Amino acid sequence: MRNESAGTANQTGPVIGVFDSGFGGLTVLKALLQHLPQARYVFLGDTARLPYGSKSRRTIAKYAAESAQFLVREQGAEFLVIACNTASALAIDAIEAAVTVPVLGVIEPGAAAAHASTATKNVLVIATEATVASHAYAAACQRRGLHGVEKACPLLVPLVEEGWIDHPVTAEVAKIYLTEVLKEAHDAGQNPDTLVLGCTHYPLLRPLLERTINELTGAGVVRVIDSAEATAAEAARQVQQLVRGDASALGHVPQIRCFATDSVEKFERLGSRFLGVPVGRVELVDLGG
Amino acid sequence: MRNESAGTANQTGPVIGVFDSGFGGLTVLKALLQHLPQARYVFLGDTARLPYGSKSRRTIAKYAAESAQFLVREQGAEFLVIACNTASALAIDAIEAAVTVPVLGVIEPGAAAAHASTATKNVLVIATEATVASHAYAAACQRRGLHGVEKACPLLVPLVEEGWIDHPVTAEVAKIYLTEVLKEAHDAGQNPDTLVLGCTHYPLLRPLLERTINELTGAGVVRVIDSAEATAAEAARQVQQLVRGDASALGHVPQIRCFATDSVEKFERLGSRFLGVPVGRVELVDLGG
Repeated sequence: MRNESAGTANQTGPVIGVFDSGFGGLTVLKALLQHLPQARYVFLGDTARLPYGSKSRRTIAKYAAESAQFLVREQGAEFLVIACNTASALAIDAIEAAVTVPVLGVIEPGAAAAHASTATKNVLVIATEATVASHAYAAACQRRGLHGVEKACPLLVPLVEEGWIDHPVTAEVAKIYLTEVLKEAHDAGQNPDTLVLGCTHYPLLRPLLERTINELTGAGVVRVIDSAEATAAEAARQVQQLVRGDASALGHVPQIRCFATDSVEKFERLGSRFLGVPVGRVELVDLGG
Repeated sequence: MRNESAGTANQTGPVIGVFDSGFGGLTVLKALLQHLPQARYVFLGDTARLPYGSKSRRTIAKYAAESAQFLVREQGAEFLVIACNTASALAIDAIEAAVTVPVLGVIEPGAAAAHASTATKNVLVIATEATVASHAYAAACQRRGLHGVEKACPLLVPLVEEGWIDHPVTAEVAKIYLTEVLKEAHDAGQNPDTLVLGCTHYPLLRPLLERTINELTGAGVVRVIDSAEATAAEAARQVQQLVRGDASALGHVPQIRCFATDSVEKFERLGSRFLGVPVGRVELVDLGG
């Protein structure tokens, strides 16, 4: 019976599309695999056009919509997770207009997790330049009665990609950024107790960021929230609703296909750092960029 | 008489196209303005698809050929300077195949300047990941009887773009990279006396890099060579040949038009850091990326 339904389920369960500008979104896929280990996943990294974080809204929306269409139209995704803070912050409307399946970004789950965490209603958000310039997190916080102070940390992504995960230079850069955002919050009379990691690269620096914020504020004062984890939990809830609680519809073993628009070798090499296990063979796709 | 020829010359002198993946190539344009202050320049920064330095040869060649065609076919460039080390290293053949005008990259002038500088025939080259992986500088050095040790320094570009030009973190990162490349050269029994800046962002860090290499090797032991400067001098020589020494054919005042594929505001803001003077109004162009 289990084998039979497994055979059928692998054919019929919904395909979950996961999109990022690069590899960082694999931290969301990693969390998804813990919540929904038995689903089928198609991941796309738009590595030929990364990073999105330093580009304009218009360009980000165009790239993200093309990527979403590839996952839905060509790979049959029936549920889309935008595992990229920049695309979620600036292009969620463009993506929803480009496809007909449910779309979940990382901003709302991240802000909801911050809301659940904070007692002072004052939160800090660190993210890319474009995410911060959009003020998407501040707006999502405000809708929940919170005050969010945002800080762009453009050096953290290249430091992660250089592999300097637990490195004195990265610690120094984190200290500079976190000191600045804390000062801005304190100058505004706020008393933040929650730090949102608003970029999917940042979870790799979580131990270092937790240590640094504790050194600056005192141990236990500020809790670190990972948007990737919050998004995976929310995606799992919504996908369970899609299959109406029939978990067997999802299949019994995880299936993952990874696509990239450039440098599959680099994806395979760096991707395992984010996913925590080897990403396997990555397929090259041309989105016309 | 001068006014008359100025009027005519501005209509007839050759247009020099300068191409980079981003703003960095403006350091080459800055040097060109010193050598050929009276020419007409059209600069294109492919900012929607930067950085090239972390991407594959295939993708870089496609983007660079499209950019070169824009400068030649749509902007009438009659001489093309590829002011991007990554595109010069990986896409010079693709660019030459895409257009019919003379094309000058930064690798050969940089290697020629290294040849003129070195007494030990041992040189160091720092550049992006893609430029180093292509070994274009090592090959250009070898053709001149030199031995080049190359080192990818992926954090230097984001540090320049963050504006941390003379910053303790940048000094620490430079020290780490330069220590590693010096160790590799010494381990191979070499005695380098020349350091080539193989990326157009690096001239902004020249004082810091000169100070750091002097601290590591002793003052005056290693000379720093700027590919941008060497390329501008060579471009000026070739353009003078094109107009057969008739300088009046070039016009009498510099004319510069700047195009970018994304974020003209960011280009205008960061561009002046590279050009040394305000870049003026930057026009947005869509290359279909």
